[in-house]
Amino acid sequence: MISENELIRRYLVPMAGEGAMQLRDDAAILPDRAGRDLVATKDMLVAGVHFFADDPPASIARKALRVNLSDLAAKGARPRGFLLGLGLPAGLDEPWIEAFATALGEDAAAFDCPLLGGDTVRSPAGLFLSVTAFGEVEPGRMPTRLQARAGMRLAVTGTIGDAALGLRLRLAPEAAWVRSLKLEERGFLADRYLHPRPRNVLAAAIGAHARAAMDVSDGLIGDALKLASAPEHADDRCRPAIDLDRLPLSSAARAALASDPRLIETIATGGDDYEVLIATDESGLAELMAAGEALGVPVSEIGVLLPGEGPPEITGRLAKAASFRAYNFEHSFEKP
Amino acid sequence: MISENELIRRYLVPMAGEGAMQLRDDAAILPDRAGRDLVATKDMLVAGVHFFADDPPASIARKALRVNLSDLAAKGARPRGFLLGLGLPAGLDEPWIEAFATALGEDAAAFDCPLLGGDTVRSPAGLFLSVTAFGEVEPGRMPTRLQARAGMRLAVTGTIGDAALGLRLRLAPEAAWVRSLKLEERGFLADRYLHPRPRNVLAAAIGAHARAAMDVSDGLIGDALKLASAPEHADDRCRPAIDLDRLPLSSAARAALASDPRLIETIATGGDDYEVLIATDESGLAELMAAGEALGVPVSEIGVLLPGEGPPEITGRLAKAASFRAYNFEHSFEKP
Repeated sequence: MISENELIRRYLVPMAGEGAMQLRDDAAILPDRAGRDLVATKDMLVAGVHFFADDPPASIARKALRVNLSDLAAKGARPRGFLLGLGLPAGLDEPWIEAFATALGEDAAAFDCPLLGGDTVRSPAGLFLSVTAFGEVEPGRMPTRLQARAGMRLAVTGTIGDAALGLRLRLAPEAAWVRSLKLEERGFLADRYLHPRPRNVLAAAIGAHARAAMDVSDGLIGDALKLASAPEHADDRCRPAIDLDRLPLSSAARAALASDPRLIETIATGGDDYEVLIATDESGLAELMAAGEALGVPVSEIGVLLPGEGPPEITGRLAKAASFRAYNFEHSFEKP
Repeated sequence: MISENELIRRYLVPMAGEGAMQLRDDAAILPDRAGRDLVATKDMLVAGVHFFADDPPASIARKALRVNLSDLAAKGARPRGFLLGLGLPAGLDEPWIEAFATALGEDAAAFDCPLLGGDTVRSPAGLFLSVTAFGEVEPGRMPTRLQARAGMRLAVTGTIGDAALGLRLRLAPEAAWVRSLKLEERGFLADRYLHPRPRNVLAAAIGAHARAAMDVSDGLIGDALKLASAPEHADDRCRPAIDLDRLPLSSAARAALASDPRLIETIATGGDDYEVLIATDESGLAELMAAGEALGVPVSEIGVLLPGEGPPEITGRLAKAASFRAYNFEHSFEKP
C-alpha cells in the first residue's frame, strides 16, 4: 500500500495552497490579513454514520469538504483553505486514494479553498474524515446562531428534504413511493444525499443581510429550534414557527410527497440538506431573495421566530400527515 | 447515554474561550490580531493506534491536546485555542466523559489554550480524536522544516526515548530489562508514554533562535531525516549526522540501556517523544541552551546537518548495539 509520504507528495500537494508550504511542514500558516477575522469550523464524517463505506471515494471526498464549506457559507465567510484529517483503514488501495484526491482537488479549486495541511493516520476500524475549514469575514459581521430574536423572518436556501429522501430511497429502494418516482427523480434525490451543494455563492449576501444563520444538517425543524434557542440570555431565546406549505421542494420531493404524504416528516426533519437557514428582518430578507435570484439559488421564506423558548410551531396543510414528535434536534449517542 | 447537547453544555462550555461563543454556534471566530500570523496544526489519535482503548480517559484527553501543543511549541507559536473533534463509541459512559473533560479543561487552562469549537460524532468502530490547535507567531519568524540547511547544529529538548521505552514495557512487562528497573523508573517511563510534556514554555526562544524545527513524534532519527530532506529545492536538502552518545537520556532510560544496549534502537527510533528537534546556527544554539537552562528544560546538541540528501549518519559508541535499518521515517499504512 502507498506510504504516507507518497500519498502526500503524489495526491495532496497538487491541491495545496499558500501557507501550506507544499505540505513539507507539519503546521500551516495563515498570514495576517489585517481587518479580517478568521472563521474556523470542523465537521467530521464517519463511515457507516455519515456515509456508506462503499460510497464512491469521489463522493466521500466531496461530502467531507462540502459539509464544511456549507458552514462557511452560513457564516457569510469567504473560504481560505482547509486542513484534512484522514483516518484510513488498511483495505484502501491506491486507485481509491487517487479517485478520492482527484475529486477533493476539483472541489478545492472550484470553491477556492486550497488544502493547507492536516494529518493522516491508520484507522483499523474504518474510514473517517475530519476537515477543518477556514474562512474570512469582516469583523462583527458574522451571522451566528446567537443573534436569533423573536420577530425575525425565517428563510432557507435551495430546496429542503431531497437528501433525506435520497437516503431513504437508498435504504429501502422497494418502497412504494420510490417505485412511483421516475428514474431521474430517484437519481436526483440520491445525488442530493451523496453530494451536498453548499451555498458559498450566497455567502457575501448572507454576511451582509442575515442576522442569524446556520446550515441545515440535522433536519430543518430541529436546526431551527437550535437557532431559536441559541441566544446567550434566556430573555432573547425564542421558538420557530414554520409553515410546511411554504417549504421549497424540488419536483422530485413533490412527487414523493404526492405518493406518500407522511414523507413530510422525513423532509422536514431528516437532515443532510446543507442549505442555509437564515433569520433576518424584512428588508434583509428582501435583499437576500434578490441576491438569490441573481445568483441562481432560491431563498424562500418559511416562517418566523416567536417570543419565548419552547417547542416549534409547525403549521400548514402538509403538517397534518405526520406527528413530528421526534424532530431530531439532539443527536444522542445512544441511538443511531 | 448523555446527549451531544448535554455533553457540550455540561463538560465543554466550561473550557471554552473567547471566540467560542459558549459553543452555541457551529463555527468559531478568531478575531484579527494585526501583525500576528496564525499557525494551525492537526494531529489525530485513534484507539489501538495512538493510545490503548482502556487508557484512563484523563490520559487520552491530555495526550490529544498535548501532541498538538507540541507542534505549536516547535513552531515557536503562542497557543490561541483549539477545536475538538470527538468520535465516540456507544460504550462510553458519563463518568468517562467527565474524567476526560476535567483533564482536558485542566490542560486547556494550564497551557492557556481554550476550547473554541469542534464536532462530536458517533463512531461505532471505536474512539478517535481530532484536535486542531491554533497559535500565533510574528510574521516570518516561524521555524519550519523547510529552512533546514547543511552546517546547522541539531539539538533536542528534554530527554529522548522515554515514551518509546514506556510503550515497550507496557507491551512486554516481563522483559529482562524491565525487571531490572526500579519501580519508580518503570513508572517514569510509562508516564512519559501516557503524558507527553510539550515544551511550550520554550516556544518564544524557539521562535527567536531556531532556524528549522519540528516536534519528535515518529522517532528521532526518522524525524531528523524528514527535517533534513524538507527544503523545497533539492540543492538545499541535507542529511542528519547524529551522535547517539550525546542523546539526552533520563536516568530510567540509562538504566534500561545498561540492562540491554540494543534498546538504543527503541530510544532513537521509537517516537512519541514530543520533544522539539531544532536546527540552528552556533549562536542560536547558545541562546536556546541558555533559555532552556533558565526555564528548566534542557536543550542538548546531538549532531549536525551534512550537505547532500541521503541516509542519516549515526555515530557514537552506542550505535554499535543496533542496526538502525528501519528508522521509521515513513509510516506505511500496510504494517502497524
